[in-house]
Parts: sequence; C-alpha cells; structure tokens
Amino acid sequence: MLLRMSTLFLRTLREDPADAEVPSHKLLVRAGYVRRVAPGIYSWLPLGKIVLENVARVVREEMDRIGAQEVLFPALLPRDFYESTGRWTEYGDTLFRLKDRKGADYLLGPTHEEMFTDMVKGEYSSYKDYPVTLYQIQTKYRDEARPRAGILRGREFVMKDSYSFDLDDDGLKRSYELHRDAYIRIFDRLGIDYKICFAMSGAMGGSASEEFLAPCDTGEDTFVACRNCGYAANAEAVVTPAPPAVTAGQPPLEVLDTPDTPTIDSLVAHVNEHYGLGITAADTLKNIVVKVRTPGSDEVRTLVVGVPGDREVDFKRLEASLSPGVPEIFEAEDFARHPGLVRGYIGPQVLKELGIDYLVDPRVVAGSSWVTGANEPGKHAAHVVAGRDFQPDGTIEAAEVRPGDDCPRCGHALSIDRGIEIGHIFQLGRKYADAAQLDALGPDGKPIRITMGSYGVGVSRAVAVLAEQLHDGLGLVWPREVAPADVHIVGTGKENQVEVASGLAETLEARGLRVLVDDRPQVSPGVKFKDAELLGVPTILIVGRGVSQGVVELRDRAAGTKEEIPLDEAVERVLAACGA
Amino acid sequence: MLLRMSTLFLRTLREDPADAEVPSHKLLVRAGYVRRVAPGIYSWLPLGKIVLENVARVVREEMDRIGAQEVLFPALLPRDFYESTGRWTEYGDTLFRLKDRKGADYLLGPTHEEMFTDMVKGEYSSYKDYPVTLYQIQTKYRDEARPRAGILRGREFVMKDSYSFDLDDDGLKRSYELHRDAYIRIFDRLGIDYKICFAMSGAMGGSASEEFLAPCDTGEDTFVACRNCGYAANAEAVVTPAPPAVTAGQPPLEVLDTPDTPTIDSLVAHVNEHYGLGITAADTLKNIVVKVRTPGSDEVRTLVVGVPGDREVDFKRLEASLSPGVPEIFEAEDFARHPGLVRGYIGPQVLKELGIDYLVDPRVVAGSSWVTGANEPGKHAAHVVAGRDFQPDGTIEAAEVRPGDDCPRCGHALSIDRGIEIGHIFQLGRKYADAAQLDALGPDGKPIRITMGSYGVGVSRAVAVLAEQLHDGLGLVWPREVAPADVHIVGTGKENQVEVASGLAETLEARGLRVLVDDRPQVSPGVKFKDAELLGVPTILIVGRGVSQGVVELRDRAAGTKEEIPLDEAVERVLAACGA
Repeated sequence: MLLRMSTLFLRTLREDPADAEVPSHKLLVRAGYVRRVAPGIYSWLPLGKIVLENVARVVREEMDRIGAQEVLFPALLPRDFYESTGRWTEYGDTLFRLKDRKGADYLLGPTHEEMFTDMVKGEYSSYKDYPVTLYQIQTKYRDEARPRAGILRGREFVMKDSYSFDLDDDGLKRSYELHRDAYIRIFDRLGIDYKICFAMSGAMGGSASEEFLAPCDTGEDTFVACRNCGYAANAEAVVTPAPPAVTAGQPPLEVLDTPDTPTIDSLVAHVNEHYGLGITAADTLKNIVVKVRTPGSDEVRTLVVGVPGDREVDFKRLEASLSPGVPEIFEAEDFARHPGLVRGYIGPQVLKELGIDYLVDPRVVAGSSWVTGANEPGKHAAHVVAGRDFQPDGTIEAAEVRPGDDCPRCGHALSIDRGIEIGHIFQLGRKYADAAQLDALGPDGKPIRITMGSYGVGVSRAVAVLAEQLHDGLGLVWPREVAPADVHIVGTGKENQVEVASGLAETLEARGLRVLVDDRPQVSPGVKFKDAELLGVPTILIVGRGVSQGVVELRDRAAGTKEEIPLDEAVERVLAACGA
Repeated sequence: MLLRMSTLFLRTLREDPADAEVPSHKLLVRAGYVRRVAPGIYSWLPLGKIVLENVARVVREEMDRIGAQEVLFPALLPRDFYESTGRWTEYGDTLFRLKDRKGADYLLGPTHEEMFTDMVKGEYSSYKDYPVTLYQIQTKYRDEARPRAGILRGREFVMKDSYSFDLDDDGLKRSYELHRDAYIRIFDRLGIDYKICFAMSGAMGGSASEEFLAPCDTGEDTFVACRNCGYAANAEAVVTPAPPAVTAGQPPLEVLDTPDTPTIDSLVAHVNEHYGLGITAADTLKNIVVKVRTPGSDEVRTLVVGVPGDREVDFKRLEASLSPGVPEIFEAEDFARHPGLVRGYIGPQVLKELGIDYLVDPRVVAGSSWVTGANEPGKHAAHVVAGRDFQPDGTIEAAEVRPGDDCPRCGHALSIDRGIEIGHIFQLGRKYADAAQLDALGPDGKPIRITMGSYGVGVSRAVAVLAEQLHDGLGLVWPREVAPADVHIVGTGKENQVEVASGLAETLEARGLRVLVDDRPQVSPGVKFKDAELLGVPTILIVGRGVSQGVVELRDRAAGTKEEIPLDEAVERVLAACGA
C-alpha cells in the first residue's frame, strides 16, 4: 500500500472542532480521520477507514482462531423478533423505530440476540450440531440520549457481536473462556490498555460477566480497582467484605429525643452533644424503603434496605443486586398505606412485626450496634444491635463503593477509576433460548434447552479509545497494528528531496510496508512535520536537505526520538524499525 | 482457509423455499448461503458471507487500482442533506424515513450523492485539489414496492458507489473512462456475463450514461441488442433510424367517412374495404396528447406526439425524451378546455393553428403520407403528407422498440433481451454540485463549478446474478474468484477415507488453497455428493473407497467432468486445477 499525500483525500485542521470535548474527538477530526454528519453519526475519511478496517481485521482473525463463524445480519429488522422478547418496548427511546411503505413496524438493530437465536434455531436441531459460535462485524444503531465524544459513543457504530450456543453449563464456560482469551489477544494486539472487570456481583467466584474497560480520564464508566492485587470490577460487582461479628455485650437499646435532625450530620452532632455517644456517621444505620417490581407480573413488594449512614445508596448497585426485580421509589402515597413506616425515623426494630423484608449492608454484622430511627417522629434509638434488636433477612450490595474501601480480594485500599467499555463477555444463559424455544434433540430423544454466551467488541469505539489513550500534545500515536501506514516518509524542500522520498516510498512498498509519503509540492517543511505528528504513523522518515550529504532522519513517533542515518541504509533501517 | 463441514454452520435444504421464484433465490437458500428475515431483507450465512466478501474484494481492488479512495458514510442520515436537493420528497415511498428521540427527521440512505458532494466541499477548496474520486462499499436501503427474487432486488443491500469530481468536462470524461475500464475488469474477474448498454438517448455519440446489464431470463430490465454488431442499449436509449425522405408527388389530402372505427385495426379494415387504400397499421399516424410539466415551475404545456399506428407509445421512452419535463396524462377535463382536439380523431393538420407543439416519430419523414384523424368526429383523412399538410416541430423517441427493428448502428435486426442491472456509470454533471454550490477556486481567483460522475455496482446483487447465470440442475457453479472455496474435498465411507480427506485438506491449505472438506461422520456418500454439487465449489476431490487402491476422483463442477487420479498426485493435480 502506497498513499501519496499529494492526492490523498485528506485535509488536516489546525483548530479543534468547536463541538469536541475529548482528545480523541478533537484529534480524529483534526487529523482528517472522521467527519461529523449528525449528532453521534460520523463519516470515515480514507485514513480513518483504514484504521477502522485494521481493527476489524484483528477482531476477525482472533474470532476465526477460536472457531467462531462469521455471518451477517441485516440492520433493518422486523418488529416481531423483538416483540417476542419484550425488547421492542423495553428499549424505550433508545430504539430507532420506523415503518415501511405498508405500515409494518421495523427497527434498526441495537443488538442481535433475537436474530442469532432464531438463526441457530432455523439450522440446527440435534445435540450433535452443537456447540457453535457465530459472530458478525456490523453496523448498529442506538438512539443515545446524549451522543457524545465523537465516535466514542455514537448512534451509528460498528460492533463485533458473537454468541455461543452450548448444550450445558460446562460448554458455556468453555465458550466463555475461549472468548475471554480471544479478547485478551485482540486488545493486546490493538495496543489498548485495559482492565478486565467483574461485571456482576455473583461473579466473584466464577466469571459470568466481565467487562473489558480501557482506563481513561474521559471515560463514562467508573470501575473499582486494587493497585495491590490487580482486582477490578464494576461498582455493581464489588462485594463488600464483612467485618467480624461482634460478640462483646452491648448496652441495652435506648430511645433518644432527636428533634430537628433532618440529616445524618445533624443527628450525629445532636446525639454526641446531648448524649455524649461520640459516634460518627458510620455508626448510624440509614434505612431506605423501596418497592420491588417483578417483571412480567403485577407483584410489587416493599423492601427496606439498611446501610451505614456515611454512605449513599448506589442505585445501580441496588438494581444489580435485586435483578431481575426492578426497584422503584417508595412514594408519599406508599408511606400513607404503611403507617408503621415513620418517614425519616425508620428503624429496623419494627420491620418483622410489619412483615416487611429487611436487607442490610454486609457491614451490619451480628452484634454490631447502631444509632437508627426509633419509628416515632423526632426520636432515634441508640445501641440498636443486629441480631438482638432486629434480625435482617439477608445482606445486599447497595451502598456506594468509595476510594479507600477494602479490596474484597486482598484487603488493600481500592481506588475508583474512569474507563471506557471496549468489550463485554457474558454468560447469558437461557433467556433468549427460552424466548425462542431453542432446543436440541438429545441422544435420548428429549429436548435440551440451549445455553448462550454473548460477547461484544466496540470496533469503531476501539479506534476512539486508541486515540484517547495514545496521543500527545502534537497528535495521534497509533500502535503499528492499527496505524494507517507503517511509515510516513516526508520529503521537504525544493531540491530533489521529494523525488528521493517517493523513490524510498516505492522501494519500501515493494518490500511489503504500508507507506504514506508526503510528496506535496509547495508545502513548507514545518507544515509537513506538524502533519506527520498529527497523523500519528509510528515510524517517520524525514528526507530533507541532508540528502545532499547522504543523510536522512528516522523518527519514532511514540518515543519521540530522532536519529540521523545514512540515506543508503534508510530502507533497511526503516524495515527494521517497522519490525519487517 | 480450511472449512470443515463437520462444524460448518451450514444445513442444506432438499426443497426449494416456498416463496422463491427465480433460480438464484432457490439455490442460495437451499445451499445455505442466505436466509430470509423479512421481505427483501436477508441474513448471510458463513458461505454466503465469504462469497459476498469475495465480490467486495474484487470491486475494492479495481477501484483502488484507478486511484479511487475508500471512505465510509453512515446509512442513517439527517433529512437536511436530501431536503436541499428535493430528494427527501421526490423519493416518495421508496425512502425509509424515521424520527429520532428528539423528533428530528432521518432517512436510511438509498444513495449518497448529497453526502459525497458535501464531503468534498468540506475538505477541498482549490483547483489544485482536483480531480478526486471517492467510493464506499456500504449497506443501502430502498423500500421497494415489490421486493423480489431474494437478494436480487432487496430492501437492504450492499452497493459500491463512487463519485468523481472534476474541474471540467474533459476531466469528467477521463474519470468516466477509468470507471468504465474498472467495471469491465470487475465483471470479467467476477465471471459475470454482461452487456454494456447505452442508457440515454443522447448517448449514441458519447457515453454520458451506460448500464452494465447481465443477460438473464429472469431479469426485470429489458435491453435492445444487435447480434450483428454488438450494439446494446436500454429501450430508452435506442435511436430510430429515419428512412429517406420521400420526394415523389403524393395525391392530395382526402377526408374519409370512417364511422365505428374505434381501433387502428378497425380503421385499417374500413379504409381498405371502402376506399381500396391497401394500407397496414404502419401507414396510419396515431396522435397522442400529453401534458408536460416543468419541474420546479407551474408551467404545463400541451404536446401532441405522432407515432405510426402499428406501435404503442413506450411511456418510459417518452419520459426519457422529454426529461427533465415530466409527461402526464391528458384528462377528459383537459380535452374539454381544448375543443379543437377531437378525441379519437386528432390529425396534425390543425395543430399549428391551435398553437400546440407536435413531435413525431423519426419515421415520419418529410414527404411521407399517412392516414390520420380529420379532426371531426367519425372522419379520418388519407394522403396526409408530412411537410405539405402538416409541419412537425421536431422528432421524438417515444414509439416502442420491437424485435426486428433496425439496429441504429448497423441496420441489422435488433433483438430484445432481459437482463439485470449490475452496474451503472453516469456523467452526472453539475446537478449536485449546483445544489451544494461545490466550487473550486480557480487559478484566476474565480470559482469553477465542479462536474461529477456517478458510478455504482450492486455488490450483494452480483452474488445473486452469478447464481442466476451460473447454475445447473444440480446446484450452483461458482467462478473461482468468488467461490467460497477453491476445492471441496469429500471424504466418504467407513474406512479411513475421511482421515485421508482431512489430511489432503490440511496439505492443500498449507499450499495456499481455500479448502472446504466434507469430514462429516455418518453422512452417506450420496448426500455428500449432492451437497458438493449444490454448494458449487469449482473443483471437487472425492476421496472414496478407491483410496485403498491409491485412487481418488477429481471433478470439475462447471465442466461436469470426472477423472480418476492417483492419490499421490492428488495435491499437485488439485493445485493445477485451481490454477495455483
């Protein structure tokens, strides 16, 4: 491949685009890789298309290597597939919906679980057919509420999605591990810095769901990481280590007058001042009432969740813990129906009596003593002891995770970092197989319900993530595997330098390199150097005035190093620099 | 590449799908290449995806070869681009329209003229930037009224579309010729039988628009072809050779009573019986009134078109001839406003007087004599001579073209064939550049309006066309360049044949071939042979019982030949057969 800047459809920009907030967006636009068409919708210019294809190629090679087979689904899909799983409505505004000329309902596929399941059901019938893993690299659509950051979170984007179909849980586990290994190879080859994060609280022992997150200050996702042992997890997946149970005798429960203490801080100040308890917010027990709806039924139960008063309830953690139940706000009218729940003064002491379930943060161990509501307006209770004064119905991961919390694996302090999701592997199980009744006929003539794994890589997003992680003040710094070229040869000046540069370009192309040569006439050396830095090809060869003395300059974009080398060694030195 | 049938996601069908009408549809479904998702919307299974990619690769290579640069536009596009050219409404029901969550209008791109024009305008400004040619291989959407024939006319399909941008007409001509040559190479490499058809009546001398049509009985398009000189054209583009002008003296015009002659046939019978004229329908002159609307204005003019009475007016030819004017039916109310036009008895004798334009078929030469209407109810006129009794305002190509008509190039008899459009090259000119005001700043500081060419290849359609043109009673017959594999090795029987077949497959893959091996256990030789014929890989190697005697069978799928060859020569013989 030989690209000549004199004819390449590329115009770099000196200024950041007005709408760009993050470095990848600024740089990919300035360097002429992408152009905005509408919010979250971008066109790829020639260099961008090459990088995008390079990412897709790496993904394809690694998927093929684990025996996954490539298919291609339409993006325009009829409603009925998504109706059968309820996702036609569940997706809400995120789904692009449209009608055809006959008034039939269609959608633009945001993800293709239903389609893959249907395809396998259409072709396979016997247990002998399984296992199988299918994938596609395809354009997907999500009408994000706030498309942002260029191609980092687009409304039209390219994804690799794959699904494994197995006869049993062991098979699913094998398929999952194959994908996990493939993803490690993919992101290693792409040169992305990533963490594999547990993405489900049940996952501590197993690996039912893991996210590949690229640490990045501008990331939208947060994740919890331990610098000591390498543990990483979504906040939703963090398991709180329980302190040891307290066995020492505790003073008896005491009800205190606590007028005008609307906040935890005011309560702590009041009880320390008037009762000399010497407590902190962490010694109070905050009780939150929620309704939990069971999807697909009318059942709504009331639940109280108790967390230490120094922590907020993290609604995403709460949701994940209650799933598939869906938590909802306990409204004023709900309180009206439950006079036993005294708003602002709820203590767990009465919940058993009221017949209301009570789940507590794992820190609320047996014997621990708390200041909490006394179930009367204006009153709190001290020395309320778990296991003595109330009996929780279980624990729940609902309290926020904070930097400095104990690592559940090694006990060191956790940090909370920002990142961008670039991959997700997930033991989906039988949800979609159940909806589609995807069975294999077993050796005994009985049906075997298939179990599925779901695996995604953000292909277009990976381009943005690389730009986000790998850049400097001068521009992009592509890893070789995805770079639009191996070497960027810059011919400067008015003598025969451009000719020499073109000659070297042709020689290096013939030797198998992908070459970009700046052969533009009447463009100053300064502009050419700036463009070379902005475009971010890993190896740069400057063919300038030194040529008359038989000298050219070899630069390494990532290291920022420059070295004068003899012209007659240039070809071999560039080949060596490019690892060819 | 080595595909094993034991794990390949492929199930062939013995029966044709119920909804399939044409061979390509039947065979691509039966052979497990595609599956229907909705009308005109298909999924690609692994073998189909490989063939589709092979076609795309050939197209990409040939586009790159002429210096076209690959980009990628979104499929989901905001309305404003298409509003500015009027196509948001002009497209009518064929356009898939949708709204996003904020109520903004979007469409699924049916073609991307506006986007390409906008992209070039965004990057380029100087005459020094030009020429440039951009292309993309992308998924397009058209809500066809009658999607049919599987992937032959789909609603979601893959196209290569490219656009050339030049400073002047000579440049456009060069870009057009480059594309024409590239398309010839593409379709030659793909192994498609095609004709290059003039697609515009103005195109006889030049080549402003040509279609690449694949002759095919099931094709939706018709084209006119000369078996003698190779001339081929759309019916719209056929130019009628004018007979020589008649100079001999003609009898004077005579008005005849012609009651009860509602049809040309009844008129001919009447005048031959009562007036002994001895004419045929070809001697009568049929006059059709139309309204012609000028797009973008309120102007509607009345036009009479005269054609020999033995021919129908071909509305598509009429439309093409009047373009950009749009012909419309002359309704009863229009006749009411023009009492001089006596419906059923219109003759050209009064048109000048009525101030109505009259265009005639090129066969209506000066001096030719006709039986036509006498502009009175129940009366026709004989010996009505062009140039004497009426003066046409010009000629028009509106009469139907019929098999046996004279070839406009060599005079031999034309035939009319059916075909499928697989490519179109078109000197678009300045229409979209005008709409977008795409100018380059010239060397003199004055703006130069850019002129564009538009070029398309139906990538997914090409797969169907190949299946349509290349199949037999047993199945598909792929040309090697697009086939899903070079060789299909079939291991049959219960001894070690499958092992030997697998060993050969591995050796041949290592030698660079793309190999499909049928290593399925417990599948009968008959089923395996049938599948090999159905799948259509060009070279088939049968590893059967003969192996114990050191013999295997080499088959050529297209030629239908079989040859026993020594096992120890199999690798070299297969390589030779595959041209490797």
